[in-house]
Amino acid sequence: ETKFTTTMASSSWVEYSADNHFPVQNIPFGCISTASEPEPRCATRIGDFALDLSKIKGRFPQEGAFTDKDAQVFDKSTLNAFMALGRPAWRACRATLQKLLGKDNASLKDDAEFMAALIPVANVTMHMPSQIGDYTDFYSSKEHATNIGTMFRDASKPLLPNWLHLPVGYHGRASSVVVSGTPVRRPRGQQKPKPTDEDADPAPVYGPCKLCDFEVEMAFFTGPGNNMGEAIPVSKAQDHIFGMVVMNDWSARDIQKWEYVPLGPFTAKNWATTISPWIVTIDALMPFQVPNIEQANPKPLPYLQHEDSFNFDIDLTCGIKAPEKSTGTVCKTNFKHMYWTMKQQLVQQSVSGCNVRPGDLYGSGTISGKTEDSYGSMLELCWGGKKTVDIGNGETRKFILDNDEVIMSGSCKGDGFTVGFGECSGKVLAAETW
Amino acid sequence: ETKFTTTMASSSWVEYSADNHFPVQNIPFGCISTASEPEPRCATRIGDFALDLSKIKGRFPQEGAFTDKDAQVFDKSTLNAFMALGRPAWRACRATLQKLLGKDNASLKDDAEFMAALIPVANVTMHMPSQIGDYTDFYSSKEHATNIGTMFRDASKPLLPNWLHLPVGYHGRASSVVVSGTPVRRPRGQQKPKPTDEDADPAPVYGPCKLCDFEVEMAFFTGPGNNMGEAIPVSKAQDHIFGMVVMNDWSARDIQKWEYVPLGPFTAKNWATTISPWIVTIDALMPFQVPNIEQANPKPLPYLQHEDSFNFDIDLTCGIKAPEKSTGTVCKTNFKHMYWTMKQQLVQQSVSGCNVRPGDLYGSGTISGKTEDSYGSMLELCWGGKKTVDIGNGETRKFILDNDEVIMSGSCKGDGFTVGFGECSGKVLAAETW
Ligand SMILES: [Ca+2]
Ligand SMILES: [Ca+2]
Ligand SMILES: [Mg+2]
Ligand SMILES: [Mg+2]
Ligand code: NI
Repeated sequence: ETKFTTTMASSSWVEYSADNHFPVQNIPFGCISTASEPEPRCATRIGDFALDLSKIKGRFPQEGAFTDKDAQVFDKSTLNAFMALGRPAWRACRATLQKLLGKDNASLKDDAEFMAALIPVANVTMHMPSQIGDYTDFYSSKEHATNIGTMFRDASKPLLPNWLHLPVGYHGRASSVVVSGTPVRRPRGQQKPKPTDEDADPAPVYGPCKLCDFEVEMAFFTGPGNNMGEAIPVSKAQDHIFGMVVMNDWSARDIQKWEYVPLGPFTAKNWATTISPWIVTIDALMPFQVPNIEQANPKPLPYLQHEDSFNFDIDLTCGIKAPEKSTGTVCKTNFKHMYWTMKQQLVQQSVSGCNVRPGDLYGSGTISGKTEDSYGSMLELCWGGKKTVDIGNGETRKFILDNDEVIMSGSCKGDGFTVGFGECSGKVLAAETW
Repeated sequence: ETKFTTTMASSSWVEYSADNHFPVQNIPFGCISTASEPEPRCATRIGDFALDLSKIKGRFPQEGAFTDKDAQVFDKSTLNAFMALGRPAWRACRATLQKLLGKDNASLKDDAEFMAALIPVANVTMHMPSQIGDYTDFYSSKEHATNIGTMFRDASKPLLPNWLHLPVGYHGRASSVVVSGTPVRRPRGQQKPKPTDEDADPAPVYGPCKLCDFEVEMAFFTGPGNNMGEAIPVSKAQDHIFGMVVMNDWSARDIQKWEYVPLGPFTAKNWATTISPWIVTIDALMPFQVPNIEQANPKPLPYLQHEDSFNFDIDLTCGIKAPEKSTGTVCKTNFKHMYWTMKQQLVQQSVSGCNVRPGDLYGSGTISGKTEDSYGSMLELCWGGKKTVDIGNGETRKFILDNDEVIMSGSCKGDGFTVGFGECSGKVLAAETW
């Protein structure tokens, strides 16, 4: 693996600041529409502009791994067809875009056709980047699993017996994955009241969830799939991983607690999952590789082992914005805390022969660090309701209130530049009234 | 609700026997292709013929709930667009097809264009009837849940506390749902060996699943969806339910046991789910309505209550065919044993505001009856490995062996006719070798 070097495209003729998440070193992919053209199509982003890729199809080479013919995929309303092309195509495409947007091509400023494809982001609406065939969520932060186990099971043995042997995961709901900025509605459902002295087994009640929570996660989208019955070996896993987003796995803790035994979370999590709209490719993240977490005791079974680093130093923040107030940060964590790598997660998903398709979504699980300010959910930050969390401006929270906006962000610090994910945000609307 | 009467179309000019699953009273929907036309399109079935609906679009009325314009949906490769049209359209379409195929239209035998659309089923390949956006599996047979609880938890309190209060379910894997006849491959994965005297905590091992099982289920496909944030009330649930199929929820018991705590079944079930290819509409099942199972102790919360019957008398059988042998029946059960109705399942899926889309799949859960020969899985039939199950021809099984074919079927007995689902079958191939 060649690490990314800044020789060719260290800067762009498009201007942006050093902390902008979308320099020429990034080149993420997403889907946009505009007022004059409401049909979604594919785009990349540079600084504060979206570049409409459906309008620059003729700028790709006639030969190679990604030609102007291949660029027809950018007319589609999602990136699934592009993701299906595979890594050589993604890399060739990204290299062409970096060249076009690099300082040496400043003459494009005078190219009216090209400039018409460069749209200020304030003028675009972001859409789901993929038609997600299946969405799986993992549970791969050891600190998070330890916190949950300590609160709800046994502080002396917080991890369940399988946790260190395989990346535990479950199938989630694909229909309700939405892009950043989409409001979400507080769910209704069954909750089981706490036993009282008078009533050791109170009947369940129905109503709006009271313990509305977020989970700070990242997620990856898949590229080419595998045939049903043919597991993806760990040595090939990277070829199937397209890129990453920041993800908020909204969770209703009171509903979850009552419903999840024995088949797992269901309506507690199927009401909404929010993702940041620009998919950052693995190639753009390669300069931020860090060593994997050591897996020595126990060592995973051979089918899950890989020696190469596939962990990334991605700073994550989560804030809560109360109505009419500024955002108060409640969590600072980092993707590098993940115990299981994305390769291991994908291998586990398909170990049974389960077929993966281009554009599937795989969530990391809540990303908690070791310190109390790095926990990735209100459940952990308020330690199961035992303490309040300061969100600034004189406001405190245990869980999320109506009209609170939850705003996550992720970024990697380079030498003089930032590769980031932008925002993953959503406001919680009051529950439906019946 | 008007019950189906046999006045108009009690018989067809197409000939079939009284036990054929597809008389004119059925009119199911599916997707077919032929050698000369390999692109999948929509069809119905009458007796031993598929009727290619993409070839008879001009036979629908010019006005009404389903016109020849609406019939353009039959050109698509799946039924999602037809399912999205809603119940008035489905009923009008079915009525037209019953009229065309009814005795009074025997002159169609001389209509070369119509007859060209009538293809012997031996000459068609069946395809997935829907592009499934999300697949959910429930756990709604009280007898099945009781058997599992008795075997693995506490025979005196076999049901978990939530079971009688809500239809417990989990999200399954949509990518690996296949139509009847598709071979499936024995999955590989992690299993935890039983503790021995020498080793109380043996390390997990990796290899082919040893406890390969089926689950006799039925499943429904949805029609029109709901908006995210707007739950489906039980009074409207039927409008969203299109029709039913027989389903085999293949399960790897040894993998399941080790992986499923705390987030539910994952790779134990994501390797394959088989459905019968013809979707039988709820309208076709209405003559076979039977009372719901009484839900008195406890009564469900009001949001789950409905007074009208929405339970159906559907005989189900499951057999195992060893290589070179005839099929030996191992289970005879009936859909009417379901404790929770399909309406209640759909309401629970969306209670949180989760959006349902046309063509989603909802499995019933394993359908076990009260007697030992009515249990819907080998796990129950062999009582956790304690006894062998006779499959005839001198063969016995505890779980499914390589090259065994599992064959399920479902049917409703009418007065002189049968409304059936055909077969849901699949052969288990040997695990992949690495
Ligand atoms: Ca999660
Ligand atoms: Ca099942
Ligand atoms: Mg979610
Ligand atoms: Mg399955
Ligand atoms: Ni899905």
